Amino acid sequence: MAKLKETAQQVELELDRILPTPDGNPLGEPMRHAVLNGGKRLRAYLVMESAKMFGVDNKKAVAVASAIECMHAYSLVHDDLPCMDDDDLRRGQPTVHVKWDQATAVLVGDALQTFAFEILGGLNTSAEVRVTLMTTLAKAAGANGMVLGQVQDIAAETARKKLNLEQIAQLQANKTGALIEWSATAGAMIGRQYIGPLVEYAAALGQAFQIVDDILDVEGDASTAGKRLKKDAAAGKATFVSLLGLDGAKSRAAELIETANGALAPYGASADPLRHVAQFVLHRDM
Amino acid sequence: MAKLKETAQQVELELDRILPTPDGNPLGEPMRHAVLNGGKRLRAYLVMESAKMFGVDNKKAVAVASAIECMHAYSLVHDDLPCMDDDDLRRGQPTVHVKWDQATAVLVGDALQTFAFEILGGLNTSAEVRVTLMTTLAKAAGANGMVLGQVQDIAAETARKKLNLEQIAQLQANKTGALIEWSATAGAMIGRQYIGPLVEYAAALGQAFQIVDDILDVEGDASTAGKRLKKDAAAGKATFVSLLGLDGAKSRAAELIETANGALAPYGASADPLRHVAQFVLHRDM
Repeated sequence: MAKLKETAQQVELELDRILPTPDGNPLGEPMRHAVLNGGKRLRAYLVMESAKMFGVDNKKAVAVASAIECMHAYSLVHDDLPCMDDDDLRRGQPTVHVKWDQATAVLVGDALQTFAFEILGGLNTSAEVRVTLMTTLAKAAGANGMVLGQVQDIAAETARKKLNLEQIAQLQANKTGALIEWSATAGAMIGRQYIGPLVEYAAALGQAFQIVDDILDVEGDASTAGKRLKKDAAAGKATFVSLLGLDGAKSRAAELIETANGALAPYGASADPLRHVAQFVLHRDM
Repeated sequence: MAKLKETAQQVELELDRILPTPDGNPLGEPMRHAVLNGGKRLRAYLVMESAKMFGVDNKKAVAVASAIECMHAYSLVHDDLPCMDDDDLRRGQPTVHVKWDQATAVLVGDALQTFAFEILGGLNTSAEVRVTLMTTLAKAAGANGMVLGQVQDIAAETARKKLNLEQIAQLQANKTGALIEWSATAGAMIGRQYIGPLVEYAAALGQAFQIVDDILDVEGDASTAGKRLKKDAAAGKATFVSLLGLDGAKSRAAELIETANGALAPYGASADPLRHVAQFVLHRDM
């Protein structure tokens, strides 16, 4: 999707501008490796497009988009650690603990989380907006959001207990849904508007995103994805695909994208970019 | 020091009240293990006493003190990991990765960092004060503060390059000094007052704290300290003691405490509790 690439370029320029530089800081190079790795920048896109809907200045939106990409990158660096998912490859590149070492990966993740808050704190907007963004992000990322989802995921794998559909949906709502929701509502938060319809959109979008992830783990091409696939079956994990079948998972994802787009009705055509990204999420191959 | 114990009790009551509970959240038990471990609560004390100096309501101060203790606890959980300092014991108790596993330790640390920001974001005070506390804490904890110090420490150890006095002072100013400074200035930030003299106090106090740490690593009693000692010599690390000698380190620490207390002159007797904690730092045995 051309617009997604455009957003990615803008946000990567900003990240390149604000991340510590390798000459001045030993964390500069590994932090940049972790963040500037050719990600899809879905979360950044949701921030930027929701911001446009509420007339938010582009410069502010780019900064907020950079913050969420740092938070997301931190979670990937820690997820890839040997004691977690133990992945050597991310977007076709060696992961941080492979290229450097585990200590560096732990610390780079730690620093990227902190940096996300630092970016939001330095935003050129009112203290009310900044504190709202920072506090909601902390809620989304922490022990009742993303990190909880990660713990639930590991617990299910360790116990080799197959989760049911509702449990998987809940786990994924925490693990990936919380940051996706934050991103889609960020524009309204910066613009100090009601976030309700965007929450509904993001919840359906986030679940569809995860179902497509499960489908790609089965059907995808490892070189396109730039990471190891077929991991879930190897780990004996229950997924949306193992529970619904491939066809069932595909139609469920399509339904969720309908739901997501339906939730945008109050915004009319101004929400078209969010509708396009929903189509992208459904049809993506990486 | 009785007053330090009193602060510890208050802050631990608050932490017990706000941390996720074990029955509702799989992170509850390991997060509590990491935070409620009988620490000295030096950072909490600095927050509470600096807050008193500026007439800040005790309830707010206790919340801010809880946040800094979560941030500190996160750094200890990650520092203790096998890929970092590889410590099995912390205050006489098994560390998180020993009692649970490494994945849990990574995620508990991650969640505690996030929780520190969540606490500050929920503070019952103006958005300006909250955003100041959150942003300065992010600066103190991140890639130009605490995490940088940790990276510098590991780099010196890996390269087996002996640092000189200035380099060690700089490393420690990042690794432990930044959070100590934040704690000592927190009261002024909440009260929206000039933080200058407290920065000077905290810089000297933080360095004295670290020198005493190095002295205790050589002279201390492992059962009183509740952790492995004599680590620095075993690792062939340059420390304040290896560079200054035991007597030199002791007199340097005493000088720094003089400097710290001198910086408090503008506050008169209202800063006596901060002077007392400086004496405690100099004479502590754990």
